[in-house]
Amino acid sequence: MTLEKKIISLAAAAKEASDKIAVSNTDIKNLALIKIAEKIEEKTDYIKEENKKDLSDAKKASLSEAMIDRLTVNDKVIKSMANGLREAASLEDPVGAITKTWKRPNGLEVSKMRIPIGVIGIIYESRPNVTIDAAGLCLKSGNAVILRGGSEAFYSNQALVKTFKEGLDQANLPVNAVQALGSKNRDAITILLKQEEHIDLIIPRGGEGLIRYVVENSKIPVLKHYKGVCHTFIDKTADYQTAEKICLNAKVQRPGVCNAMETMLIHKNIADTFLPKLHSAFKKEKVELRGCEKTRSILPEIKPATEEDWYAEYLNLTLAVKTVNNIDEAISHIKKYGSNHSEAIITQHFNNARYFIKKVDSSGVFVNASTRFNDGGELGLGAEIGISTSKLHAFGPMGLEELTAAKFVIIGNGQIRT
Amino acid sequence: MTLEKKIISLAAAAKEASDKIAVSNTDIKNLALIKIAEKIEEKTDYIKEENKKDLSDAKKASLSEAMIDRLTVNDKVIKSMANGLREAASLEDPVGAITKTWKRPNGLEVSKMRIPIGVIGIIYESRPNVTIDAAGLCLKSGNAVILRGGSEAFYSNQALVKTFKEGLDQANLPVNAVQALGSKNRDAITILLKQEEHIDLIIPRGGEGLIRYVVENSKIPVLKHYKGVCHTFIDKTADYQTAEKICLNAKVQRPGVCNAMETMLIHKNIADTFLPKLHSAFKKEKVELRGCEKTRSILPEIKPATEEDWYAEYLNLTLAVKTVNNIDEAISHIKKYGSNHSEAIITQHFNNARYFIKKVDSSGVFVNASTRFNDGGELGLGAEIGISTSKLHAFGPMGLEELTAAKFVIIGNGQIRT
Repeated sequence: MTLEKKIISLAAAAKEASDKIAVSNTDIKNLALIKIAEKIEEKTDYIKEENKKDLSDAKKASLSEAMIDRLTVNDKVIKSMANGLREAASLEDPVGAITKTWKRPNGLEVSKMRIPIGVIGIIYESRPNVTIDAAGLCLKSGNAVILRGGSEAFYSNQALVKTFKEGLDQANLPVNAVQALGSKNRDAITILLKQEEHIDLIIPRGGEGLIRYVVENSKIPVLKHYKGVCHTFIDKTADYQTAEKICLNAKVQRPGVCNAMETMLIHKNIADTFLPKLHSAFKKEKVELRGCEKTRSILPEIKPATEEDWYAEYLNLTLAVKTVNNIDEAISHIKKYGSNHSEAIITQHFNNARYFIKKVDSSGVFVNASTRFNDGGELGLGAEIGISTSKLHAFGPMGLEELTAAKFVIIGNGQIRT
Repeated sequence: MTLEKKIISLAAAAKEASDKIAVSNTDIKNLALIKIAEKIEEKTDYIKEENKKDLSDAKKASLSEAMIDRLTVNDKVIKSMANGLREAASLEDPVGAITKTWKRPNGLEVSKMRIPIGVIGIIYESRPNVTIDAAGLCLKSGNAVILRGGSEAFYSNQALVKTFKEGLDQANLPVNAVQALGSKNRDAITILLKQEEHIDLIIPRGGEGLIRYVVENSKIPVLKHYKGVCHTFIDKTADYQTAEKICLNAKVQRPGVCNAMETMLIHKNIADTFLPKLHSAFKKEKVELRGCEKTRSILPEIKPATEEDWYAEYLNLTLAVKTVNNIDEAISHIKKYGSNHSEAIITQHFNNARYFIKKVDSSGVFVNASTRFNDGGELGLGAEIGISTSKLHAFGPMGLEELTAAKFVIIGNGQIRT
């Protein structure tokens, strides 16, 4: 069978399975999630054995230590995947929920009911645990899923999907509700992206290159997240302790993630007093600052920031710093260089907080809190499948609710239109 | 200036205007809508004069009477456009609305706030009134819009947009918030669809050919509606009077629209008694029936329905009729031939109503009511910009709310992530 035929038949099988999974009762889906968690724990040895094949290939290919670390599936990773599934089982089922209901003057009762999206294709480069996390959220939200992980995790992902299917089968759910693309060939992605007849949504997770490739080659709607160039603006009325605590947290608590701060903006009126103290606080955490001209007139020892620095998603302990004349200059800077991800203002001024909230066009706008909170779990949405930085369908963390759509249900007793 | 440069600069101007319109207060937007309504009435003669150019071209090109009728802008059409704008002014402004709010254990106050989408491109083939209706809804929802109407309405649309801009200017809003593409060249559409840097959403309105062209050539998200092949299923417990009233309404009240019924499904247990009466009721309204074999064994005088008939969106007084063995066969038929638009069940059986609601995957699912109600105004959403039959972002009638997205707003007092 050619690769194309194989993928078409896999997508058609997903569509068929999605019909069943879409109308499965919550208790059946929860039972399946719990059974899959058990299976994964039971089959720890098998999964680790398959993972070793990937690790051996990775060593042959001289992948970096960091890459190999990300790829490794050990007992702790397996435990965390199993617990992720148990958490998905404990979350509220969005499917069938009536989110709104109203009555028309002619007596029609109109409501909106959440329904699954259908078949979701997830293309990722990340750790093998994404295979289980993403499949679990899709199952809970009544969607079928086609998974295409990185080729370096090929054997691990195959083993995880095989185990997932065994759990589905035990719960009497269709095993084709979760499938792996099963090819290391990159053409497989291109073919997958053309199956608009069977696939309803594509979610790419990975580097900007992968995401741009998906957007440019897909006729299927894409929920995407390019990058996070997140800003914190310290307004002139900011309390210093609050500013220091929040900026340090946003930068250093976990610098390699998309909601970490990359650029700090500071009002000129407080720059003289705040910057030296912030600089020494950052120095203790080994953060390298790069500043605009005004910033460097206060902190001459730091490197100058170039145009590229303002656009940079460092994902490490580097921070660009700009001193601005007023809140409007801060907002303009965010508009020009930001990525619509997460921005914070530190202020004690009520109207400036309101102004910042209104004008900043980001998925998460924070007042006196760290941008690191832009995350499904932290905001109380439960586990998430990614953070969307485009506005269509979802903007911000995507939890179970964002994996559903809503239909109108209209109950009458013979109403006709006149 | 080349066509491409012209369109890029127009799209960039829209993006700039969208920033201002996004944060404009409701009273300013309402004032603009009312001023534009006045302007359109004031400039009736000018608009009709420009419309005559299109009508004269249409006659030269030997367009059909029906086409010329649709193209004609007379006093009544102008009055209705002006009133549409006044209605938009009277609708609630979705922008800035807090749709949800909750508090986290650490004290963070999280809410979701509606925001405009940004720049919307609307590509349509319809009557010139769509120019004003669509621009009015985009303005009210804080979006900038780029309009590309049919080339046969070129002069009319230019005149309408020019008038719209005069009203925007009087209300001190940026005139580039509403722009016409200003070219009859079809390449203009192709170029527009590539401006993903400046345009956030494309809404095509027109025939299936136009919509497929847009989907295949756009890298920008598309909200689409292919067609409406709507079904009514008369269950075995249906009350005859209710069934007749609803089926007649769904078919004949306005057969040329997407929410009209195209196929009627009937349970075999009642087919013998219902079909002859329904046939004579439809005959009075000049509806031609085409039936499956079982249906024709009861109504031998009607034509047989072919496979094509089950897929047909007739948009006229033709109706396909199928007798089914049970509710599952009705649902399977809808799944295979339907378009996820609007389907109704006529029943007195509570569990069958629930079963139909759960299993039918359409934007509007009706119980004992006419599919003709799947319309923004009828469901109480106010004016609509179309009906989406895909599930991402919107499914069903798209009113002002569907022209917005939502951002997370998080208020803290120094919270950091641990």
